[in-house]
Amino acid sequence: MNFTPHPVNPELDLEIVRDVPVSAQAVFQAWTDPDSIKQWFAPRPYSISLCEIDLRPGGSFRTIMNDPEGAQMMDGTSCYLVVTPNERLVWTTALGPDYRPQTGDMPFTAILELTDNGSGGCTYRAVAVHQDPASAKQHAEMGFHEGWGTVIDQLVEHIRDE
Amino acid sequence: MNFTPHPVNPELDLEIVRDVPVSAQAVFQAWTDPDSIKQWFAPRPYSISLCEIDLRPGGSFRTIMNDPEGAQMMDGTSCYLVVTPNERLVWTTALGPDYRPQTGDMPFTAILELTDNGSGGCTYRAVAVHQDPASAKQHAEMGFHEGWGTVIDQLVEHIRDE
Repeated sequence: MNFTPHPVNPELDLEIVRDVPVSAQAVFQAWTDPDSIKQWFAPRPYSISLCEIDLRPGGSFRTIMNDPEGAQMMDGTSCYLVVTPNERLVWTTALGPDYRPQTGDMPFTAILELTDNGSGGCTYRAVAVHQDPASAKQHAEMGFHEGWGTVIDQLVEHIRDE
Repeated sequence: MNFTPHPVNPELDLEIVRDVPVSAQAVFQAWTDPDSIKQWFAPRPYSISLCEIDLRPGGSFRTIMNDPEGAQMMDGTSCYLVVTPNERLVWTTALGPDYRPQTGDMPFTAILELTDNGSGGCTYRAVAVHQDPASAKQHAEMGFHEGWGTVIDQLVEHIRDE
């Protein structure tokens, strides 16, 4: 591990940690390829109809999510802050492309940290970082743990199917 | 120059560009040392009573500015996004330490770009990046150009006095 793990504030952050049987490299690749994202990023039966990635600090990460009937329910663009291949990916909804501030309901920064375990798998850690307890609560009630947990399963399945 | 200059959006960004007779290295040093910041960062007779710097992407940049009577008028903490010695410094008021979103009036991202001119001086470019035209207008009316222009003069004077 060549990074300092994000220090969690339990009142403001939501965290999910899982040991997964796929490599950090495969997970990082799946998280940064638009065609891949479409396969696993939305908990089924939700789906991703569009994904655009400009993979650099200051670049944008855009996804459109559709509901089970296919109707668009979310079109969000965030900004990458840290891109460290196979280790760490950080992006925030508080900024748009080229670090431009943007407002939105429940802004959060997402931190993905990957650490190979030496036997082909890795520890997968994702943290959602909020500005206040109300935002963290709202995100939890929207199903952060269930949703992000489900997509880890879908992600692993996607990597194994490739 | 090893970076791509920020592409200005004239409706959303405020920009100041100046050729200064001091090196990019000296300017970068002055921008990233708390004791130095106190000497030049506020347009006199305003002053800086406190400056704290954690110089890393995700680290915080805090300043307290006092009015000419010495009363505290601003206590702001922003987050560094890019720290490229002697070339580029990017920070945003839309995030606090460790990339945590924070709300505030008129959020902006500041981009400082430095390019040595080969004869001891450098081109100093600063851009304030806003979310909407209203924020850009507000920042302009608060005196962005006069204020940032004045502190460039103070910065050069500070470097020459050292």
